[in-house]
Amino acid sequence: MTEEQKYMSLAIDQAKIAASLNEVPVGAVVVYNGKIISGGYNKREKLKNSLYHAEIEAINGACKYLNEWRLIDCHLYVTLEPCAMCAGAIINSRISKLIYGTSDPKAGSCGSIINLFDLPYNHKPEVIYGIMQKECAFVLKDFFSGLRK
Amino acid sequence: MTEEQKYMSLAIDQAKIAASLNEVPVGAVVVYNGKIISGGYNKREKLKNSLYHAEIEAINGACKYLNEWRLIDCHLYVTLEPCAMCAGAIINSRISKLIYGTSDPKAGSCGSIINLFDLPYNHKPEVIYGIMQKECAFVLKDFFSGLRK
Repeated sequence: MTEEQKYMSLAIDQAKIAASLNEVPVGAVVVYNGKIISGGYNKREKLKNSLYHAEIEAINGACKYLNEWRLIDCHLYVTLEPCAMCAGAIINSRISKLIYGTSDPKAGSCGSIINLFDLPYNHKPEVIYGIMQKECAFVLKDFFSGLRK
Repeated sequence: MTEEQKYMSLAIDQAKIAASLNEVPVGAVVVYNGKIISGGYNKREKLKNSLYHAEIEAINGACKYLNEWRLIDCHLYVTLEPCAMCAGAIINSRISKLIYGTSDPKAGSCGSIINLFDLPYNHKPEVIYGIMQKECAFVLKDFFSGLRK
């Protein structure tokens, strides 16, 4: 298992917590200098708040941990392609590297609907796509097939 | 003074609080059924957190007030054109109407860098631009000219 797979599997674990709470299962972790400094999972329904995406919670935790709004040298692992809000938060927080598992054709803003990182904002993270793609997609597929039953 | 000017002047008051705390002065309020249900101002430096834009705080407060992630029939007034994160949060929270004062050529994502609301996301707010534009721009100009001194 590579380093990237190791961290992505922890993001998947976060997604599984969301699933167990009947939330759309998306999970994220932030890694800084080889250490996991924060994690998060989607809590939109539980907290009745549109802002509580996995990435936002993970970025919030990383800012608190580092006591800094610039998350330089931080790597964000997330199971699903970030939406516009979360891609914008990645830009605003200067996350160095984004690693995501599977794409989101409906709201993904790192290549699906648009790639916000191609636009002339003042920060552009490195992006790696497809780490544990099947596993990340399966958690979502499994959740939605459960809902249909 | 129109209704829109009345609410924008309250968003400007929020921006002035930010200025007094040495934060880039941007302010916002959310109006629901003619009532102000939340407000916010930029706190990025104070809280050392890249997520604390005025709009995010106002949306967070509105979700809490309504106990609902869908901010249907809510109008967001903000002094400066929202960035990608905040425009994405507006989409995610289904804000019905966005009213902003002045444009942001560096990060604005409602027409400057891009207009995210023109893309095929699952929500598209009504947008009104230019309410009290001069006053909204002045608060920023005044803050940055103060910094240079």
